Amino acid sequence: MILNLSHIKSARQRISKYIHRTPVMTCRTLDRISGSELFFKCENFQKTGAFKFRGACNAVLNLEAQKSNFGVITHSSGNHGAALALAASIKKITAYVIMPKNSAQIKKSAVLQYGGKITYCEPTLRAREKTLVNMVAKTKAPVIHPYNNYEIVAGQGTAALELLEDQNDLEVIITPVGGGGLLAGTCITARGIKPDILIFGAEPKGADDASLSLKAGRIIPQRYPKTIADGLLTSLGSKTFPVIQKNVNDIITVSEENIIKAMLLIWERMKIIVEPSAAVGLGVLLENPDLFKKKKVGIILTGGNVDLDRLPF
Amino acid sequence: MILNLSHIKSARQRISKYIHRTPVMTCRTLDRISGSELFFKCENFQKTGAFKFRGACNAVLNLEAQKSNFGVITHSSGNHGAALALAASIKKITAYVIMPKNSAQIKKSAVLQYGGKITYCEPTLRAREKTLVNMVAKTKAPVIHPYNNYEIVAGQGTAALELLEDQNDLEVIITPVGGGGLLAGTCITARGIKPDILIFGAEPKGADDASLSLKAGRIIPQRYPKTIADGLLTSLGSKTFPVIQKNVNDIITVSEENIIKAMLLIWERMKIIVEPSAAVGLGVLLENPDLFKKKKVGIILTGGNVDLDRLPF
Repeated sequence: MILNLSHIKSARQRISKYIHRTPVMTCRTLDRISGSELFFKCENFQKTGAFKFRGACNAVLNLEAQKSNFGVITHSSGNHGAALALAASIKKITAYVIMPKNSAQIKKSAVLQYGGKITYCEPTLRAREKTLVNMVAKTKAPVIHPYNNYEIVAGQGTAALELLEDQNDLEVIITPVGGGGLLAGTCITARGIKPDILIFGAEPKGADDASLSLKAGRIIPQRYPKTIADGLLTSLGSKTFPVIQKNVNDIITVSEENIIKAMLLIWERMKIIVEPSAAVGLGVLLENPDLFKKKKVGIILTGGNVDLDRLPF
Repeated sequence: MILNLSHIKSARQRISKYIHRTPVMTCRTLDRISGSELFFKCENFQKTGAFKFRGACNAVLNLEAQKSNFGVITHSSGNHGAALALAASIKKITAYVIMPKNSAQIKKSAVLQYGGKITYCEPTLRAREKTLVNMVAKTKAPVIHPYNNYEIVAGQGTAALELLEDQNDLEVIITPVGGGGLLAGTCITARGIKPDILIFGAEPKGADDASLSLKAGRIIPQRYPKTIADGLLTSLGSKTFPVIQKNVNDIITVSEENIIKAMLLIWERMKIIVEPSAAVGLGVLLENPDLFKKKKVGIILTGGNVDLDRLPF
């Protein structure tokens, strides 16, 4: 399957009555600090507090009835889990969510609040996958992978679609990259609408598998990630990497210091709450002050789910 | 002088190109918790991070040229100071701001950032006023009182004007009350546009001078206030109290517990940053769960300037 703009538009039609059309915010102080003109797509205001609801909603609504009888199942460090739980509730089916037991409390609570059923596992990819196999055998529910799934990618691409509708003169678009669902969806949308737009992935230096993969020309799995951006710890997927590789202009890594600085700037200057993973896009501009001078830059603020008693400042 | 809706409309015309038209946000979770339909006017997104810029801007732009040659002067625990500093910068005049030395660091920095000149004083009304007299003698600048000033009141009233334009079916409007500038301006606007609307002031139990004043039929000065809502420590003014007395349906006091709970709900559920004083309006609904059941309630979120390392949660 080759995703194109029409898949994104179909996804939008499917999910539009269930999702928020989130606002695009601007901030003169951040424009001054960055030297660019910034347009922030505020997915921290999305239902469940993150863009992940777009993809989850598209995937669940697109399931054939007989497949969804058993519910849906996924593993997720948090935002996708909550998103899938809420999406499943639209269809009145059960969402089984496998979560590392060290996930942020706010993310655990969210899954439960939306009616999801959590199975905890050790915080390693291997443990997650083993638990997943067991749970699938037990429930017979189809797996909705957090990012390595075309319906998920198509759903995530609707964020950039709205952003470019609201601000059609963007020259650059930056999204954080973890598993690559949002970045791949953004690539399809942005390249489809504006072939010449510059598209960048933003990644913590402490979890730089996407940058290494892009350089190597093949997926380099993430090992021992170490970053506060807990939504960006995963490796690229076989369905996201090729899209990213084909369309992205570059993947830029950001230091922990600049991630935290960007997060604090967004909180203090824009008066909105974003999680560390969402701040990595602005971090790119702090880390590379001359890269986008005077350009119109769209940045997707991916989520706002933070444990308020574990703030880095 | 008797303020009426035309003064608010003139103020709006005067300031509209300098202020942000702030969004009105909604939140289904808070609707569910409160049992009402809530419309939040987000003045935390206003320039300088608080509604105070509306009044300061109106007052400064309305000064006769010869009066403003010496600059402007005020005393303020913070948000009005920053607002006056930015408003003065529009006219390229100096703002002298007298601040209690225990003001929040973020509020001191803001005044300085907008080019204001701070004189520190002890954190008592008496010390403020003495310092003010000295500074006026020294600078000859006219005093722009934080609230006991008709131009300030008219400027603050523009927030409710925008709110009622965006949501003209509101049945209730709630604003925090400190010195009463915002509440008086809201009274003029809301009563002028919708004579039957219910208007409430929201006040911390630990600084309940406005509630006591309304009951007594005269201004009862605030003594020894004790509340986290540091923008609401002041007494009502001779120019704000009569307007409030005539128009307000009641002033409702809120416990510290419900102020903090409301603030946390706004942060976690709406993903926006508000200061404690701004949360007192929602606090009214938490404290009186049955008062506004199923009503359409407008709440002005007054500001978002918080010291992030002194959070109450």
